[in-house]
Amino acid sequence: MTQTNDVQPKQADEETRAAVLRSALLLCHERGFVNVTLEAIAEGAGVAEDVIAGLWPSKAAVVIEAFSSAIGNRFTSIDTGDFEADLRGQLTAIARIFGDPNISPHLRQVIGEAQHDETVMPAFLELVFGPNRTAAHTLFVNAQRNGQVRKDVDLDAAIDLVFAPFWFRLLLHTGPTDDEYAAAITDLALAGLR
Amino acid sequence: MTQTNDVQPKQADEETRAAVLRSALLLCHERGFVNVTLEAIAEGAGVAEDVIAGLWPSKAAVVIEAFSSAIGNRFTSIDTGDFEADLRGQLTAIARIFGDPNISPHLRQVIGEAQHDETVMPAFLELVFGPNRTAAHTLFVNAQRNGQVRKDVDLDAAIDLVFAPFWFRLLLHTGPTDDEYAAAITDLALAGLR
Repeated sequence: MTQTNDVQPKQADEETRAAVLRSALLLCHERGFVNVTLEAIAEGAGVAEDVIAGLWPSKAAVVIEAFSSAIGNRFTSIDTGDFEADLRGQLTAIARIFGDPNISPHLRQVIGEAQHDETVMPAFLELVFGPNRTAAHTLFVNAQRNGQVRKDVDLDAAIDLVFAPFWFRLLLHTGPTDDEYAAAITDLALAGLR
Repeated sequence: MTQTNDVQPKQADEETRAAVLRSALLLCHERGFVNVTLEAIAEGAGVAEDVIAGLWPSKAAVVIEAFSSAIGNRFTSIDTGDFEADLRGQLTAIARIFGDPNISPHLRQVIGEAQHDETVMPAFLELVFGPNRTAAHTLFVNAQRNGQVRKDVDLDAAIDLVFAPFWFRLLLHTGPTDDEYAAAITDLALAGLR
């Protein structure tokens, strides 16, 4: 009995969470992130708004978790020991995610909203930026350790250098992010301009 | 007489333009780009809203021109023939502009708004991105011609690579843009990670 009581509330919680995330994702596709409200997410999920407010700190946190779950393992950092291949793989994955018309318009709106709504960036940093940054950092540290990245490289600037171009094109709308772009950025970042 | 008639309307136009730009800048500082309206800009400048609508295609165009004028020659591309020094100078200038608390919050809001308001990006591309991109392109082409940048480098990706990190930090709020960061990005972009 004790075991069953422990498990059932968790399952119910998981089902509620999943329904809320599905509702958030659907609403973003229908009306865009800026026009999504907690009330509408609650209605779509068939739960009370209070329940959502108890599980997430903000609308942004719900939506960002919904997109993170949807992207899932499309952006998993793999560390095979071949830095060039791993970097190329990661940049190709990010180029494809940012080039996906089911993702990029929503990601743009989330980051856009973050420029004047202070509840957005903490959720983004915790759920998206933080974990990916940590994984990238491990990859770069290992590459530095085994001589595939120079010892004197400032890793924080180096990680910015390889990922920033994709954000730049996503947010300034100045060009596509595709496999060709990922290849060009990988080559340039490894070899330098000179 | 003809000469006087030709000159006076232009002067009046210039004065109106200057008053409108001053009003737009002041309002952005007071209430933030998203809360600025053409009506308020007109009131602050002491002109009719129609006059502004006749001179600029959108609120975004007025505000972006106001900031471009305010930044003025702080971001002039200089081509001395020493690519490393010129690049370092440009990246230091952009780091300082993006690190300026009188500019960065407004620039963030403009780009943020551009993610769901389609009138913003055309003004930004025409007044800010376009001219700076053309200047950077000339600098890179000359450096490629005189052997300071490799012949096989994709210039469009290369220009993204050096400028994107500053936009990345501005829009994702993940770190400061300062002289030290500009130096790290310059060194990395020139020499590569390997």
